[in-house]
Amino acid sequence: MSVALSVWRLTVGVGDAQNPNEGDPMPSVAKSMLDTHPGTIDVDLEDLARCVDACYACAEACTACADACLGEDAVAELVRCIRLDQDCADLCVATGRVVGRRTASDAVVARAALQACAQACASCAEECERHADHHEHCRICAESCRACEQACRQLLGALA
Amino acid sequence: MSVALSVWRLTVGVGDAQNPNEGDPMPSVAKSMLDTHPGTIDVDLEDLARCVDACYACAEACTACADACLGEDAVAELVRCIRLDQDCADLCVATGRVVGRRTASDAVVARAALQACAQACASCAEECERHADHHEHCRICAESCRACEQACRQLLGALA
Amino acid sequence: MSVALSVWRLTVGVGDAQNPNEGDPMPSVAKSMLDTHPGTIDVDLEDLARCVDACYACAEACTACADACLGEDAVAELVRCIRLDQDCADLCVATGRVVGRRTASDAVVARAALQACAQACASCAEECERHADHHEHCRICAESCRACEQACRQLLGALA
Amino acid sequence: MSVALSVWRLTVGVGDAQNPNEGDPMPSVAKSMLDTHPGTIDVDLEDLARCVDACYACAEACTACADACLGEDAVAELVRCIRLDQDCADLCVATGRVVGRRTASDAVVARAALQACAQACASCAEECERHADHHEHCRICAESCRACEQACRQLLGALA
Repeated sequence: MSVALSVWRLTVGVGDAQNPNEGDPMPSVAKSMLDTHPGTIDVDLEDLARCVDACYACAEACTACADACLGEDAVAELVRCIRLDQDCADLCVATGRVVGRRTASDAVVARAALQACAQACASCAEECERHADHHEHCRICAESCRACEQACRQLLGALA
Repeated sequence: MSVALSVWRLTVGVGDAQNPNEGDPMPSVAKSMLDTHPGTIDVDLEDLARCVDACYACAEACTACADACLGEDAVAELVRCIRLDQDCADLCVATGRVVGRRTASDAVVARAALQACAQACASCAEECERHADHHEHCRICAESCRACEQACRQLLGALA
Repeated sequence: MSVALSVWRLTVGVGDAQNPNEGDPMPSVAKSMLDTHPGTIDVDLEDLARCVDACYACAEACTACADACLGEDAVAELVRCIRLDQDCADLCVATGRVVGRRTASDAVVARAALQACAQACASCAEECERHADHHEHCRICAESCRACEQACRQLLGALA
Repeated sequence: MSVALSVWRLTVGVGDAQNPNEGDPMPSVAKSMLDTHPGTIDVDLEDLARCVDACYACAEACTACADACLGEDAVAELVRCIRLDQDCADLCVATGRVVGRRTASDAVVARAALQACAQACASCAEECERHADHHEHCRICAESCRACEQACRQLLGALA
């Protein structure tokens, strides 16, 4: 959990929330860009930025986990893990892109993407958790998937 | 060069249109690959191959339509079209990849991806159809989106 | 259904080059879209369309080959093949998108993408060819990679 | 160099800013995953992790900048910026994936991807810098592109 926290903080810039009075807030990539968007953002900006950053971070973690699994001697036992890592990475990249776009946004499409992403994250996390005791990359990846699943579900609630 | 030719024909399926009665049907990329998969495909192969090919074709059409819209003098009137083209392209690529994978497949993830893709196709088609009389690229793109939406829904029915 | 059919044939059913006098030309996705682009295409349209279609077809074949390899009993012997399939699929999708865009095109970026794609195709083809006698999916994938490599190199020559 | 540093901190550097003296360096997503990879990493791990993270961060920034440009009243003046943002985002995602994979890595493919990515970043940065005084999203995006370009070139040097 401590690792998850560290990577989550790393990824989405929780720091500022914790130390709002510090002179150097270091916002996330998504938040920096959303803050400068010419349009009106009709959803909570923190929820949105957290979700977009979590999608990219999860895509990065899942791609790396699939590759690490492929390099394990026990690759044959990790076939399902590799497969779900790949699905999750693909849906996270697509969803991070779709949800991060705010111009002429279509809430129905955003919701469908978020639901697919949350499902892929849940399935991948469940599989990675089965290997977490043997493979540290699976443990970290599962945490990243759970964080992304939660960020997607929170944004889904905010969009409703 | 003969190899290039054979795959070019494979890609675009020259055979059937030209020689519909020949015993050489020139299958699609998806069908060629699925036919050689080591595992058991637990869904109708034609529905599956049609859906995967339709996802890639729609991704290609939507990327091209967004680019063509961006090149129109009336780009400011096509902002929503560009945006939905991009969403649709991203979800089509992800869904074509997810659904096309057959090893250790997770039907719940596949269904969620297909639903997101069908929704993105429907929204993009609806917008492109509004411009179809003025922009031929929108007319063709809308057809590609409708074909992909239908292929996704047909596969969803088959997976149920 | 007729729309689905027409786009399905659009995707897989060309044949015009060989039978230009037939009443039903069915051009490729790339060619259909490029023909309707509002801008001036400053490169041979056939070379360009062939390359874009080849990139998408190769991405589809490589994704499927990686998945089929992952499903083989001898997965441990196919690790390098899976890895190169994934690289090739990723670079083909990116290159098909970059090269297919014609609005405000940057030839330096297009050339760099084509060189990366041609290299990934060459490396993947070389590896797949080593397994072509044992795995039909590797044989077909190698052909798709060689066709894409050649299409990229031909377009590179045309852009020079 | 200061630009690269600022975006690097923007992307991955929350924790350290808060507790610069702590013995807890807050590894990046890429570094966390690479640290747990079963294989031998034959290149400087910091250079590698920095490059992979920079690719994902730049993809995120470019996708957001294209969307923000599309939402500006002056969209017609930002056509080239949108186009290069899209190219850069696509090549950054592909390169982050290719370079981040360490199992059975092919240095020739990695180098070609890095060169394409560095070129796309340079072209996109140059265009975004032209709009940096008017559009804050272009200014931030240009910084992200320059940081990614530099990270790619540093890794290219390390791979040589």
